[in-house]
Amino acid sequence: MTTSFVKDVFRNAAGSPIRELKKYSERPGMISLAGGYPSNELMDAQGLQKVLQSFSHSEFSAALQYGGTEGLPALRAELAKLSHTKGLQVKADDLVVLSGSQQGIDLIARTLISPGDVVLVQAPTYPAALSAFRLAGATIHQLANDAQGICFDQLEATLQTLKPKLIYTVPTFANPSGKTLSKAHRLALLKLAVKYQCVVLEDDPYSDLWFDTPPPAPIFAMRHQVDGGENVCVYLSSLSKTLAPALRLGWILGPNDIRRACVLAKQSDDMQASTLTQTAAAAYLASGQFHKNLPKLRDFYALRAHTLASEINITMQGKITLTAPQGGMFIWCNAPGIDSSMWLQVAIKHNVMFVPGAAFFAHDPDASAFRLSFASQNLAGLHTGVQRLSQSLDEFSA
Amino acid sequence: MTTSFVKDVFRNAAGSPIRELKKYSERPGMISLAGGYPSNELMDAQGLQKVLQSFSHSEFSAALQYGGTEGLPALRAELAKLSHTKGLQVKADDLVVLSGSQQGIDLIARTLISPGDVVLVQAPTYPAALSAFRLAGATIHQLANDAQGICFDQLEATLQTLKPKLIYTVPTFANPSGKTLSKAHRLALLKLAVKYQCVVLEDDPYSDLWFDTPPPAPIFAMRHQVDGGENVCVYLSSLSKTLAPALRLGWILGPNDIRRACVLAKQSDDMQASTLTQTAAAAYLASGQFHKNLPKLRDFYALRAHTLASEINITMQGKITLTAPQGGMFIWCNAPGIDSSMWLQVAIKHNVMFVPGAAFFAHDPDASAFRLSFASQNLAGLHTGVQRLSQSLDEFSA
Repeated sequence: MTTSFVKDVFRNAAGSPIRELKKYSERPGMISLAGGYPSNELMDAQGLQKVLQSFSHSEFSAALQYGGTEGLPALRAELAKLSHTKGLQVKADDLVVLSGSQQGIDLIARTLISPGDVVLVQAPTYPAALSAFRLAGATIHQLANDAQGICFDQLEATLQTLKPKLIYTVPTFANPSGKTLSKAHRLALLKLAVKYQCVVLEDDPYSDLWFDTPPPAPIFAMRHQVDGGENVCVYLSSLSKTLAPALRLGWILGPNDIRRACVLAKQSDDMQASTLTQTAAAAYLASGQFHKNLPKLRDFYALRAHTLASEINITMQGKITLTAPQGGMFIWCNAPGIDSSMWLQVAIKHNVMFVPGAAFFAHDPDASAFRLSFASQNLAGLHTGVQRLSQSLDEFSA
Repeated sequence: MTTSFVKDVFRNAAGSPIRELKKYSERPGMISLAGGYPSNELMDAQGLQKVLQSFSHSEFSAALQYGGTEGLPALRAELAKLSHTKGLQVKADDLVVLSGSQQGIDLIARTLISPGDVVLVQAPTYPAALSAFRLAGATIHQLANDAQGICFDQLEATLQTLKPKLIYTVPTFANPSGKTLSKAHRLALLKLAVKYQCVVLEDDPYSDLWFDTPPPAPIFAMRHQVDGGENVCVYLSSLSKTLAPALRLGWILGPNDIRRACVLAKQSDDMQASTLTQTAAAAYLASGQFHKNLPKLRDFYALRAHTLASEINITMQGKITLTAPQGGMFIWCNAPGIDSSMWLQVAIKHNVMFVPGAAFFAHDPDASAFRLSFASQNLAGLHTGVQRLSQSLDEFSA
């Protein structure tokens, strides 16, 4: 009997609860409200395929070669322009292309966090961020939560006592809560981070998916409003939710030394994002089609969010509470008195799925909470999904 | 003045010496014999572009979505078949798709190596492997070198004394030495690794690029010949050298617990390799075109290797020593009495580049050594490149 060569932290780690659910989502007839997958119908497959066809032989051939770790210059220029639309005045050289924004969380965890360092997160928060911080050996502390997403009354005391190295936040249409930090709270958070010398890692994959009104500008856009703000702000965004996750493209903004550390870590990891998907994304963004497609995406997701929320409010009245989101892909729900992970077992038999709440907490999970995504189902799917949720909950509660 | 938030190991790390040279390689007129880049002319751009065009709307649309961390089932099946041609009897489920085989070195370093663990490497060896082990906090020890690539007289004593966690080896057409371990030495290495409970990380990106005769089967193929061998063998390979680096696709084989740890680490890193490039590679491999293209690739690289070696032997006789390789992409050379990193400064002015030897050593570098790649230059480029090497060396030595 050989002892495993694997380090304890990896031998004992659980897989992503969402990725582990994927096998059920592939069952015929399953309506999955679990994963945060963009709708297949809403991705511009035709447009992207056309872009790849449009390349000349020499262009396509160049797109098959190695490229720099920082990213393709043409894509960096397009992502800088896209950042402008989010209120971020940055140049191509200020950003590094990532193989998805998840990689940015991992690179930041690897380059900044030593075992025992404290990382603050919202509760609930994004499970794969928890995983990246855990694998880096962080001690994770959940910030107390209020209607705004962070309870500021307790934040300063926490910073003073725990001296965290980093705060991880999804300030806009948060995964999973759907909440958005106000402009005033963003500035307050930044001031406290500077005062207590704590990096603010701002994860922003959803801000383009607003329903009625655009969200406040990112915290990163405020970095010059506070002395020393530019030293603590790191920003991540992604093309996965608005263009296509399969491209594996995101980007990071931040202080030079942190960006440089991420480039070094990335050189040793996957060397670079795919030159081919970078070339395709750069051409697609340059064509203007991305920005033409966004309003359609927003309308569709708004309609789906509204439909899912109102179907639940009508069909499951008194059994489920929820707050309708203003953007993003998720509705955070509560089934008072119910353990949602046990309910899920019954729901799966009814061919409907969600993500139980426990996955979104570093500790002290709210067992009655659960996350629904409205993104990948059409209206008929959402309707049937809610019928099945309701029936399975009745069966589970009986 | 703010102290950097970046961990020391990243703040003090040098970038990849080869990637740092890239800026010179983009100068007009430069003949780069530095990077191990496959030849643009030899990649089947037309074939890959056709494959992407051939997808129906629903196929292309599916290729834009998230997929499993382990990799696309269709690609895993094709990579298992490709592994068979290398003498590896494995099934699709036995392998995990990586975003390039470099990622496998990093994942293994992250999941197995704790700070202070000893890693054994050949000398010279692949710089980005050194970097991955350094970032994981390993103590790197160079194995003594002989004509075969590893000095077996000293290996057992080293294993006994240093108790390394891992041996990293490129046993076939090694980067940078070009050397290949014999079948007998592969088995001897495996036996010693089992005896001293040390993981053998076998990095095999070049074995398909043989010139006259196929190389011995991988060490991984021998794992059942030694009791307990299957617990210590980990194997990496890549499509970067034989299909296209821009796809960012490689794969890993190894014991279940190690593969599982790599999947967990990858979930937290880039989640998955690009579904789009995986779908394209699977279709291309299934078309049979990959295997039709290989003999052409081998002939071209053999001709280029032979041309570069003989041009040097003729033009720089008595100044440069080298061993002609039997496969791969590199010729490892020596300029006795010369510091190759200082010579490089002069060479760059003559519009020719190579990689100075120091980068390939963990310690005690051989300053007179340097690496040439013949892969990305055609015969005229190799001829002119050698003329410039010769002129610049004469100028430097004058």
